[in-house]
Amino acid sequence: MTITTEKGSAEISTMVPLIGDSSFIKACYGKNEGRLPVWVMRQAGRYLAEYRAVRKNVSFLELCKTPELVAKVTTDPVNKFGFDAAILFSDILPILEPMGFTVTYESGGPTVAPAIRRPEMVNELSAYDVRDKMSYVFEGVRAIKKRIPDVPLLGFAGSPFTLACYAIEGHGSKTFDSVKQFMYCHPKESAQLLEAITEVTIVYLQEQVKAGADAVQLFDSWSGILAVNEYREWSLVYSEKIFKALKSLSVPRILFVNNVSPYIHLLRDIDCEVIGVDYRMDLELAMNELPGKAVQGNLDPNILYCPQAEIRERVRAMLGNLTRLDNVIVNLGHGILPDIPEESVATFVDEVHAFRREV
Amino acid sequence: MTITTEKGSAEISTMVPLIGDSSFIKACYGKNEGRLPVWVMRQAGRYLAEYRAVRKNVSFLELCKTPELVAKVTTDPVNKFGFDAAILFSDILPILEPMGFTVTYESGGPTVAPAIRRPEMVNELSAYDVRDKMSYVFEGVRAIKKRIPDVPLLGFAGSPFTLACYAIEGHGSKTFDSVKQFMYCHPKESAQLLEAITEVTIVYLQEQVKAGADAVQLFDSWSGILAVNEYREWSLVYSEKIFKALKSLSVPRILFVNNVSPYIHLLRDIDCEVIGVDYRMDLELAMNELPGKAVQGNLDPNILYCPQAEIRERVRAMLGNLTRLDNVIVNLGHGILPDIPEESVATFVDEVHAFRREV
Repeated sequence: MTITTEKGSAEISTMVPLIGDSSFIKACYGKNEGRLPVWVMRQAGRYLAEYRAVRKNVSFLELCKTPELVAKVTTDPVNKFGFDAAILFSDILPILEPMGFTVTYESGGPTVAPAIRRPEMVNELSAYDVRDKMSYVFEGVRAIKKRIPDVPLLGFAGSPFTLACYAIEGHGSKTFDSVKQFMYCHPKESAQLLEAITEVTIVYLQEQVKAGADAVQLFDSWSGILAVNEYREWSLVYSEKIFKALKSLSVPRILFVNNVSPYIHLLRDIDCEVIGVDYRMDLELAMNELPGKAVQGNLDPNILYCPQAEIRERVRAMLGNLTRLDNVIVNLGHGILPDIPEESVATFVDEVHAFRREV
Repeated sequence: MTITTEKGSAEISTMVPLIGDSSFIKACYGKNEGRLPVWVMRQAGRYLAEYRAVRKNVSFLELCKTPELVAKVTTDPVNKFGFDAAILFSDILPILEPMGFTVTYESGGPTVAPAIRRPEMVNELSAYDVRDKMSYVFEGVRAIKKRIPDVPLLGFAGSPFTLACYAIEGHGSKTFDSVKQFMYCHPKESAQLLEAITEVTIVYLQEQVKAGADAVQLFDSWSGILAVNEYREWSLVYSEKIFKALKSLSVPRILFVNNVSPYIHLLRDIDCEVIGVDYRMDLELAMNELPGKAVQGNLDPNILYCPQAEIRERVRAMLGNLTRLDNVIVNLGHGILPDIPEESVATFVDEVHAFRREV
């Protein structure tokens, strides 16, 4: 099944398998007949000893801006657990910085300042050269591909709505009421803000792919607080615009919406390959709503606090429930939590890889 | 349409319309042919001048425990806005007090102490006589019925899972991770806790109905953070048990699940009359999933920050989208927010009452 070839790069002279033959990429196109691919949202994160060691010496933002460290923390968990895809270590918020925001990370979560509380502030945002200002990210992508050329690498960005949530609220929130109020009261400026973020995001993801990313994921962390019509108007149209702009690059495009269930019927026609499903929604139901698409998900990360045998059982229960497997990428249904034992992650990966449909 | 009769109570000697002929009760049974009934979750709350005036002199918990004040704050918004149902002013947490918890209300939200962090603590909870310890609630119900005998009155309780969330976490949370971890790790004690709360809740709601409540609503505020199987196991079975125990009382039973979409297919068969739908889910889709049931919802409360003309337009858009109206109770899709203008509430009610299907 795996074809080896020589990748046309002076830096990579060894024989490497074609990324397109990986279980991850094949599953994105609904054509995986091998074992199930698995990766974990936030797989390079605080639960990992190697990550915590790196963070003893650098702040979160310094880490994001140091390509060699980005490559190290991105590849460490892949090497340790045998994940079938790597995901660029970065954060969704730094692309806001050159627009005129200060992004800081504290224990209580990130803050973005100044928060947009008056509609006029949208006009004051700066256009900027993404290739230049975000070059540390693209250098990071290249450094990762040097280390693990044969593992599919996901680039990513936050969805425009999710980034706008932080830009308007200034920090995380349970319900982002001030964001809704702003968008209901100032539809023109809201569209302008979402459009500006969309434009930056398109170049940002295009450049990640050009630097070596083999797939891209759009993280829509906060749309799950919207009514259906507002989801369509404030979020979906911008995700669609981004995906259309990436289509010609021919890499799988993944949309993860945290709390996707209320909107799943709207995602049937979005031009992307994979829908990431959060832990709440039944994965088989999601698949049935999305003919022609792959699905990614969706074990509740809290299950990784269970005893190892129970983790295995719940992985089997989730996968055993599915009528198709060729279009499934296994993941958690939310980012992994900081104090989950590494042993449980290994168990999770092992059980996914061991899973075979009993016929 | 409205039949007047003499209610068989010495306290009510005036001629009053049959509650069963009200648009609210008829809609619960899918038989409303008149104008649409409307009420609002938290309609007796801080957005209301009369409520804020009462709260200048008493704490939240004192208010809950003073039947005459309960009757005043319950009936004020009904008299002011012409809501088609009243809902008992109270909170979901006080029934935890006699079990051995201290419930306090501060600006950051309620706290329940001691939080259950060790499974053994479940065994230390006290059984108690609900009729005695919660008598202030039932007196409140009787006092309300004296003031507005011809308006349907909803009694309510929190769902066992939602109450267990507070009992285990000790306070509100975005994701209640510690609750999930407790329930995954201690299934036996979790079931015991949920069962204990269920038993109390059954008597609590039965007594509310006996005191005069014409319908009951179970508020499941936090199940929306659960995977489907956990929703079934940790929440739905207890809601079902409560509803079964209330069946013989022949009052409409309403289940409100905040973020109901991932579980809506499981609610098709639950033995109750009405499903309350949060603002996220398309109301017509919900209705289609629930043949034989009424639906209640579901405008995003943030829409009440919009200009009045826009509020009216969004109400018409929501209702105009529905293929049936005889089983619809209009509400917000979440509790009303404290700084929403009263004018907007009046507009909302007025537009619902003015709505007629254009044939």
